[in-house]
Amino acid sequence: MAELPLVPITLEGSSVLHQMFRFDWSGWRKLSAGERAEIGAEFAALLSSWEQGASEGHPNQSAIFSQLGHKGDLMLMHFRDSFADLNRAELALAQTRLFAYLQPAHSYLSVVELGLYESSAKTYAALAEQGFEPGTPEWAAQVKEQAARQGGAMAPRLFPAIPPAQYVCFYPMDRKRSETVNWYTESMDDRRRMMHEHGMIGRRYADVVRQIITGSIGFDDWEWGVDLFADDPVVFKKLIYEMRFDKVSAEYALFGQFFVGVRLHAAKLGTWLEGTLE
Amino acid sequence: MAELPLVPITLEGSSVLHQMFRFDWSGWRKLSAGERAEIGAEFAALLSSWEQGASEGHPNQSAIFSQLGHKGDLMLMHFRDSFADLNRAELALAQTRLFAYLQPAHSYLSVVELGLYESSAKTYAALAEQGFEPGTPEWAAQVKEQAARQGGAMAPRLFPAIPPAQYVCFYPMDRKRSETVNWYTESMDDRRRMMHEHGMIGRRYADVVRQIITGSIGFDDWEWGVDLFADDPVVFKKLIYEMRFDKVSAEYALFGQFFVGVRLHAAKLGTWLEGTLE
Amino acid sequence: MAELPLVPITLEGSSVLHQMFRFDWSGWRKLSAGERAEIGAEFAALLSSWEQGASEGHPNQSAIFSQLGHKGDLMLMHFRDSFADLNRAELALAQTRLFAYLQPAHSYLSVVELGLYESSAKTYAALAEQGFEPGTPEWAAQVKEQAARQGGAMAPRLFPAIPPAQYVCFYPMDRKRSETVNWYTESMDDRRRMMHEHGMIGRRYADVVRQIITGSIGFDDWEWGVDLFADDPVVFKKLIYEMRFDKVSAEYALFGQFFVGVRLHAAKLGTWLEGTLE
Amino acid sequence: MAELPLVPITLEGSSVLHQMFRFDWSGWRKLSAGERAEIGAEFAALLSSWEQGASEGHPNQSAIFSQLGHKGDLMLMHFRDSFADLNRAELALAQTRLFAYLQPAHSYLSVVELGLYESSAKTYAALAEQGFEPGTPEWAAQVKEQAARQGGAMAPRLFPAIPPAQYVCFYPMDRKRSETVNWYTESMDDRRRMMHEHGMIGRRYADVVRQIITGSIGFDDWEWGVDLFADDPVVFKKLIYEMRFDKVSAEYALFGQFFVGVRLHAAKLGTWLEGTLE
Amino acid sequence: MAELPLVPITLEGSSVLHQMFRFDWSGWRKLSAGERAEIGAEFAALLSSWEQGASEGHPNQSAIFSQLGHKGDLMLMHFRDSFADLNRAELALAQTRLFAYLQPAHSYLSVVELGLYESSAKTYAALAEQGFEPGTPEWAAQVKEQAARQGGAMAPRLFPAIPPAQYVCFYPMDRKRSETVNWYTESMDDRRRMMHEHGMIGRRYADVVRQIITGSIGFDDWEWGVDLFADDPVVFKKLIYEMRFDKVSAEYALFGQFFVGVRLHAAKLGTWLEGTLE
Repeated sequence: MAELPLVPITLEGSSVLHQMFRFDWSGWRKLSAGERAEIGAEFAALLSSWEQGASEGHPNQSAIFSQLGHKGDLMLMHFRDSFADLNRAELALAQTRLFAYLQPAHSYLSVVELGLYESSAKTYAALAEQGFEPGTPEWAAQVKEQAARQGGAMAPRLFPAIPPAQYVCFYPMDRKRSETVNWYTESMDDRRRMMHEHGMIGRRYADVVRQIITGSIGFDDWEWGVDLFADDPVVFKKLIYEMRFDKVSAEYALFGQFFVGVRLHAAKLGTWLEGTLE
Repeated sequence: MAELPLVPITLEGSSVLHQMFRFDWSGWRKLSAGERAEIGAEFAALLSSWEQGASEGHPNQSAIFSQLGHKGDLMLMHFRDSFADLNRAELALAQTRLFAYLQPAHSYLSVVELGLYESSAKTYAALAEQGFEPGTPEWAAQVKEQAARQGGAMAPRLFPAIPPAQYVCFYPMDRKRSETVNWYTESMDDRRRMMHEHGMIGRRYADVVRQIITGSIGFDDWEWGVDLFADDPVVFKKLIYEMRFDKVSAEYALFGQFFVGVRLHAAKLGTWLEGTLE
Repeated sequence: MAELPLVPITLEGSSVLHQMFRFDWSGWRKLSAGERAEIGAEFAALLSSWEQGASEGHPNQSAIFSQLGHKGDLMLMHFRDSFADLNRAELALAQTRLFAYLQPAHSYLSVVELGLYESSAKTYAALAEQGFEPGTPEWAAQVKEQAARQGGAMAPRLFPAIPPAQYVCFYPMDRKRSETVNWYTESMDDRRRMMHEHGMIGRRYADVVRQIITGSIGFDDWEWGVDLFADDPVVFKKLIYEMRFDKVSAEYALFGQFFVGVRLHAAKLGTWLEGTLE
Repeated sequence: MAELPLVPITLEGSSVLHQMFRFDWSGWRKLSAGERAEIGAEFAALLSSWEQGASEGHPNQSAIFSQLGHKGDLMLMHFRDSFADLNRAELALAQTRLFAYLQPAHSYLSVVELGLYESSAKTYAALAEQGFEPGTPEWAAQVKEQAARQGGAMAPRLFPAIPPAQYVCFYPMDRKRSETVNWYTESMDDRRRMMHEHGMIGRRYADVVRQIITGSIGFDDWEWGVDLFADDPVVFKKLIYEMRFDKVSAEYALFGQFFVGVRLHAAKLGTWLEGTLE
Repeated sequence: MAELPLVPITLEGSSVLHQMFRFDWSGWRKLSAGERAEIGAEFAALLSSWEQGASEGHPNQSAIFSQLGHKGDLMLMHFRDSFADLNRAELALAQTRLFAYLQPAHSYLSVVELGLYESSAKTYAALAEQGFEPGTPEWAAQVKEQAARQGGAMAPRLFPAIPPAQYVCFYPMDRKRSETVNWYTESMDDRRRMMHEHGMIGRRYADVVRQIITGSIGFDDWEWGVDLFADDPVVFKKLIYEMRFDKVSAEYALFGQFFVGVRLHAAKLGTWLEGTLE
């Protein structure tokens, strides 16, 4: 089989929106304690209903994080069944009274994505053996059928519940396309091998870090968004530092900004709004 | 025929302006329901008249989109017969009472463009056979005449109606001019071949994605603007990801920001202004 | 004659300032019609006097443009005899009542420049024949004398009147100095040849586009500013696109932001301030 | 032993947050002297308690610096035992009345880090001699045990007190990953040698500069943050300039913004708030 | 003598802060003429005392410039004996009533620096002859002693008075450290030769331009800041353009933003505040 720049099969799941807001503490502190309590309770009730949301078997959830640093004070993470539903969530938030104290600072739009390098390679090899020529409609139909079958089996990973860890680390990333180092001109086989090596490191951290990869080509300014969840944030550094020495990251990874937050359950929002973490 | 850096013939159609606005929800919520209804109706009436606008046979239209994320809340897309008409639309919007709640966040100025690599190659070859030397006034006159003829035939694609799909994805892009990878020093023939391969991928998505390409050299900060229209936004990702592996994108494409929105008909603007999508 | 990195002779004329402002429509709309009329008339009177300004035979002029897109609403272009005079114009504008509604968004400071590659080459060759060694004080004195002579002859191009076309396109640019592609290490002769080829394209558009080149090394963040004036803005795209394939642009040009506007005569400012273009 | 891209052992200590604020002098000057005194005293009391903070033997401290230039007016530096504790400090500051006059301009999140190139090399060599294969679980367990042992011994450097010098210089930095110059693909041994050379320069400045290195991979937008403390700021320049010529900086270092401040003890905050340094 | 990446001796003098402010003309115009006169006089008195400041024989001075363009309206330039003194100047300005109308837009922190490539080469050669080995403590002590001696002789250039020219041009710059073009890996001798050639051009402009070089490694975001002073601003362009073709600039220089201003004596501040230059 000639080495074509084959595209790996990807499966898509939940639609995801990250929203980072600065909180206008000085405006907020001007309200009376009673007003703050009332406005906070209204907002907490909405978020509380979203924390446990589910539709058609999907865990359609939102989570709140108290952000570290000046990039934002509150980060909201929404998992929904469609972009329209994400937009509905944005509009609903904008109607709360608390929204007057939330200044949009950043956001990220993506969908949960599973990139199937290993199984794509097997599928493509099997199709080649059966005589299908890559790129033909017949070949594409076979690939599509195969993807649909796997999508069903992988539903729990495509429509994940938000892990309950204390800390989150979110960052967007690209694969490099520079003059001599270009991910998109490497052979499918080389890309598969590098992704495999990369995955092996992640696996060693599996019991201390939960990871959700979302794809954002066509949706936002980077190609992927990565969410890491852990109870000890030092493992974010350990994991990403170790990965930075593997070939796919050392040579092909470009990183955007990093956002770190402490999980804040809706039931504790009122406390946070009075200035304490729990 | 010596391989000169020949410039492909382009045809130009509608003048296009994208406007992205943040909406000042907290200012808006301070108005009474009655004021909101009145101000919203005035704005919706203007946009409604533009949704069905037409002049001299051209579908001079505007469309509204509810944007995802912090880059904006409302995106307006205007197709007109001239830049002066686009400017008139901007000025008219600025006189509405709703404009006090719209904060300009971004915009993009361009014209619908058809880049005719295939037919340029044929035209240039035919002219070479007839003995015209590239770059001479006689040659240029022949090319111009040819372009005018094709412009007439292609009017429907040069002055398109805005497709009715639920989602839009807009992004600007450049062709790379770096030290060793430079689109503008490749031969016309190589560029034509790469554009052809690129077009073949697009064609496979033709029944799920509608695409409008606009040129913006001399008008805005990137060379082209791309609008994709689809009822399932996941196809934006599938299409662009697959294209990223073809030579022209893998090696020569530079992308700007991506903007995604949900179509909002003017008749539904009042509903949106009360915080629901439909 | 050894090939030294000779510097072409440049001639300098008018001092030029571009000012881009956002207009605070919602603040403006809060004024009564009478106040708007009065404040607008005061501003229009000042600009009107500047439209026809002249001093010492120089057409010291200002022009107004209604900008397309979010980069600004009004662009003012000032041609004066000195930077101090430009600063005086800025200060005078800041004293008008309308200035409270103008938010400075961008600007560009430069001087009209003629880069004399062709005649420099001839001068340098002639001086070499006469035995002057490049870089010596005697050689420099000869060059300076030659430049002064040409400056007189070229006064009309050094102190131009602002062309009366309907549209303007302004953009700043640099010549590249990267690791292997570096304009400033090319020989004078190669640079001259490339500039000549570049000029030939411009000449073909001479009857539809007027061009003013200003130099900004030492004044602003790019090396040159380019103003194009035309009645059909599509020619901006045609011209710049065609030039992008010539060697000097394809390999050595870096472009900044593009600003497009519709000419607005001071007499029509009052109309514009009421939201219509003419 | 084959040269693998081995990852040096790092030890992590205090969680660190830098906060840079602009101070709203004109809002502040509008308050009466009495209000200023009261609000300033409240803030100074909080910071004063943090200046001498300690928990579980760790010097959990905050320090204040009066910044030079427009990047900020006050820089706060917090050392704590966890990110949650840093977040608690942020929230506590936001509840003070002075916070209404502090505008967040920048921040940096990191943890004190010791990168043990020398001892990692010894540990890896010893493990290789003992027959452990790099990357195996057994090897990793040995490395972890070794790191834990060293962490104990190095506690004073992992949980440092903020040095009492008059000036601070803070900047973030990366190691380069470009096409041909890539820190992360160099061998462990080469990296170790370069870091050693780098350290030798630092050692020559040991009696005039104190340095704290923090790691921020996974936490903020650069890989490391560097704090230098000295009584004569010219040594910041001397040290960094000299280092810029060593291989690891000349070829592999990328620097972010530089922030310089004058130490301000909490007891002097009231004086600063009246506009004098001491 | 082996060619080591020797670091040239630098001498440091005055601490320098550039402050660029936008002026809130519309807020200012709302004050009565009497208030404006009073507030302006207070500010002018402070600046006037700083214009002629001196301490310990050093001309500790400030100067005011009326800026061209949107990057700022007023630029203040302060020369002091320490960073603490610069910070005191900042704090003093912030206490004036005029400061409510000054919006910090940019700044630059640096110290006057003399880079002694020529004499360093001689010193290093002499020390080599005397048998001192570069980098040893004995060698360093000799270098330090030599530097101290020269510092005394060069005091007038290390603690300069601000030249009285009508125009200033300020810009920051770096020496390039890219993959194949890296100033910091060139030999001391090559760097010395290039700096010499560079200096020769500057010398030809000595009677029309005064130049002050400040170093900002460890202080601000670029490595050096350059101030040029001239009565005819066109010489800024002529000088910098000519230098751009010498090797050290063509290949190794990276430039930041350019700031241009017209000198404004404190005695004329009241006039400026009423909108005229003199």
